Amino acid sequence: MLTATLLGCGGTQPLPGRALSSLAVTVGGHSVLIDCGEGTQVAARRFGVSVYKMAAVLLTHYHGDHIFGLPGLWQTMAAQGRTEPLLMAGPPGLEQLVRALLCVAGPLPFAIQLAEDAAKAGPLPVLGGTVQAFPLRHRTPCCGYAFTLPRAGRFNPARARALGIPVALWRTLQQGRPAGGFQPRQVLGPPRRGLKVVYATDTRPCGALEQAARDADLLCMDSTYPTDEFLAKAREYGHATCPEVGRLAAGAGVRRLWLTHYSAAVTDPAPGLAAAQAFFPAAEAGFDGKQLQLKFDEE
Amino acid sequence: MLTATLLGCGGTQPLPGRALSSLAVTVGGHSVLIDCGEGTQVAARRFGVSVYKMAAVLLTHYHGDHIFGLPGLWQTMAAQGRTEPLLMAGPPGLEQLVRALLCVAGPLPFAIQLAEDAAKAGPLPVLGGTVQAFPLRHRTPCCGYAFTLPRAGRFNPARARALGIPVALWRTLQQGRPAGGFQPRQVLGPPRRGLKVVYATDTRPCGALEQAARDADLLCMDSTYPTDEFLAKAREYGHATCPEVGRLAAGAGVRRLWLTHYSAAVTDPAPGLAAAQAFFPAAEAGFDGKQLQLKFDEE
Repeated sequence: MLTATLLGCGGTQPLPGRALSSLAVTVGGHSVLIDCGEGTQVAARRFGVSVYKMAAVLLTHYHGDHIFGLPGLWQTMAAQGRTEPLLMAGPPGLEQLVRALLCVAGPLPFAIQLAEDAAKAGPLPVLGGTVQAFPLRHRTPCCGYAFTLPRAGRFNPARARALGIPVALWRTLQQGRPAGGFQPRQVLGPPRRGLKVVYATDTRPCGALEQAARDADLLCMDSTYPTDEFLAKAREYGHATCPEVGRLAAGAGVRRLWLTHYSAAVTDPAPGLAAAQAFFPAAEAGFDGKQLQLKFDEE
Repeated sequence: MLTATLLGCGGTQPLPGRALSSLAVTVGGHSVLIDCGEGTQVAARRFGVSVYKMAAVLLTHYHGDHIFGLPGLWQTMAAQGRTEPLLMAGPPGLEQLVRALLCVAGPLPFAIQLAEDAAKAGPLPVLGGTVQAFPLRHRTPCCGYAFTLPRAGRFNPARARALGIPVALWRTLQQGRPAGGFQPRQVLGPPRRGLKVVYATDTRPCGALEQAARDADLLCMDSTYPTDEFLAKAREYGHATCPEVGRLAAGAGVRRLWLTHYSAAVTDPAPGLAAAQAFFPAAEAGFDGKQLQLKFDEE
């Protein structure tokens, strides 16, 4: 099972009652955090996401509303006794950013492992799944993230018995790990549909995003502007309008869509939601603390 | 009139419902902000303190819980169109800190004027009054701040008439500014008692603080630990216990005392408040948004 928690849904400035856009993906109590604006650690605590058990922090880009919560997050991890390394990924510039922030927040009792220029690297293993970065279209180098939790093929007990595999080893093989000299592929059917969560902000609609979001269980996307009246602004600042978001979600065939990263001028998400629903009826308006538990399909 | 607004009362980590310790002193709509931990800009907005109209940001020291809100505050000022220079003061290390934070938050459309090693400098003029920094006793160089709003002497209309000063000039002279070749001292009595607000955290009780707080209208002081059971910890980490705070306030003869900068382990301020009141009965427990309007004494 996987839990997606939208820690905040705001863009540019944190507001009372609206933290900056950030998503936590949690599997087995451990999380991956995507973006960390000012106030993210408080939002995590408010919505039950453990700061201590964050396995990785993924940054889309280095505008302030996506990164200013980092030094406080690190220091809280340190105060809670973390010694395990923290994986951090982001577009080019990550090492420079981390070094500058460590000038004011360091030294820390844990190492930071950098995956710079993440969109050009392969998938990063984390939480028993993988994260793949992909390029977005913003005013500055920016990437989205697709987290995939794979699902092994169906276990074949008859085959396991025929091979003489002791029952005590079945569970391990079922989880895709070798046991007692046996390989999972000997007793598992073809891999089944896993789970995929995609986070993409700040961005214009683009092909790389539509491709990464294909068939996703959940897409959270930059919905800075409610309607196409703001299209010129969206183009100028590298954001999307809600109708564009609805169209992209429909084109990518996602199962669920959450709007996030609203402009500070958007006090009511309803008009933007309606505009997105015209193209993708299942669209939902993101809000701070919005949470979803995703399970593997019944088969 | 002067308004003191406690924007947050927490130490170390921001919590849901408890922002990090920060005080805004407001005169005529413009403010001086003392300390700026993560979340201070949101607290300011929540409690009606204009970020745009902040004349100065004073830092007590450079631990994360007092400074990590700065880059976000600056960018919000920039987004709101600020071009006026921002005065910043702090203990030695200010320029280095500002430079490091500008690496991630800059460039800004306004200049930052630095008053480094503020406790060794004279009073800084701001909001029609002055701010004087003074040294505190913490684990790192740290200073408290005393903001004083002076009050001119009583205006003597008989004397003004005798000198032939046109009535149109009276108000300016009354406010302490020369007008039409006349000097305020020609028509004003001796200066009267003004207003003084003193903010001191993080610190052990110390002589410089007791002296700076003498006769203050309001003292906000580090009350990290509730009772003297925590005295060893208070000494180790450079903080104060509530009984120590009560004793210092009584010794300095302050008019009002607010406890602030509670340890994250303090969920109920009542025991600490009772411990402070044993020495200073008028002590009050600080809370996020606690506000006081101070007026000149009736005479």
